Amino acid sequence: MFITFEGIDGCGKSTQARMLAQTLREAGHDVVLTREPGGSPGAEEIRELLLRGDPDRWSAETEILLFTAARRDHLERVIAPALAAGRVVVCDRFADSTRVYQGLSRGDLRGLVDQLHALMIGREPDLTFIIDMDPETALARARERGGGEARFEDFGADLQRRMRAGFLALAREFSGRCRVLDGSRAPQEVAREAAALALAALPAAEAGR
Amino acid sequence: MFITFEGIDGCGKSTQARMLAQTLREAGHDVVLTREPGGSPGAEEIRELLLRGDPDRWSAETEILLFTAARRDHLERVIAPALAAGRVVVCDRFADSTRVYQGLSRGDLRGLVDQLHALMIGREPDLTFIIDMDPETALARARERGGGEARFEDFGADLQRRMRAGFLALAREFSGRCRVLDGSRAPQEVAREAAALALAALPAAEAGR
Repeated sequence: MFITFEGIDGCGKSTQARMLAQTLREAGHDVVLTREPGGSPGAEEIRELLLRGDPDRWSAETEILLFTAARRDHLERVIAPALAAGRVVVCDRFADSTRVYQGLSRGDLRGLVDQLHALMIGREPDLTFIIDMDPETALARARERGGGEARFEDFGADLQRRMRAGFLALAREFSGRCRVLDGSRAPQEVAREAAALALAALPAAEAGR
Repeated sequence: MFITFEGIDGCGKSTQARMLAQTLREAGHDVVLTREPGGSPGAEEIRELLLRGDPDRWSAETEILLFTAARRDHLERVIAPALAAGRVVVCDRFADSTRVYQGLSRGDLRGLVDQLHALMIGREPDLTFIIDMDPETALARARERGGGEARFEDFGADLQRRMRAGFLALAREFSGRCRVLDGSRAPQEVAREAAALALAALPAAEAGR
């Protein structure tokens, strides 16, 4: 089973992905916890190209190609082999982030993102948690966290509002696999809901194998 | 006018591209001499990812995505602005190399290369010189030249023979823009033929602007 976490910067995706992986392991599942962009040695090198330097150094189109190259490597080297071995994959961001960030942030490139995804990736998660949160709070959290990856945090509150709306629209578009979690609650509360939903979905997914 | 040089490793593309740029400059044209993979600062960084390390570190599909990302950046930042300013662009390798190397060398991925090209690049050269040469001679030359870019030279003579056939097939497929040059002659002789063909095409291209 392939589970992803999505949402705007600072919404708590990485924390929630870690907590879910831990809970699933405690429930006896063999879990691979990974992230995008990156997640495999090659994809991490491409991530460096994407997050380093001026945010405008790549056009939106080149950026989409680089994200897709990183995703293809991550899928081939980490995600697909783990799923084939019957493991659970928990991933912090996947194609939905590209749909929202590159698809909405600089011109309407959603069509291009989808065509490239269909051509080179194809695979969708079985379950996607979209952590919904007020952008002001999320932005403050992201800034607090700091670190070298302010690449996407630089977008500011207005763009984060559009991204939030974009993720909520995706949740409606892919309502079969997407579950929206209210991220304004305590992390433990969010984690409890995510774990319940994942555990409820897991036996069904494993029976269907 | 956008002119490219193509052919197997060691066939003399770089030398011929340089010589043609020089001749066109002497004839009063404003020429940009460039190369792929690379040709713009971002694309040169992607080139590093492609040429460094184990030749099998990327799957053919990821490699195609990285070449296309580099090409998109090179096209946006260098080729398209130069053409828009009325300059002549002479480029050592372009999409035909991806069609032959990635399209033929590891499984038949030509269809994928073409779909990705149509989606993300679109542009073809106005004139392409395919330098045809016996792979044994070309391989010896490439090895002699040495340097850090043995990435594609490692493929060996048998694969080079298939690549040669691939380039000749492309020349037939794109017969409108492709001219095959016999690379077994002295470089000055090859250069003379390329210059005559380019100069004959140039006034027409400029009148048509």
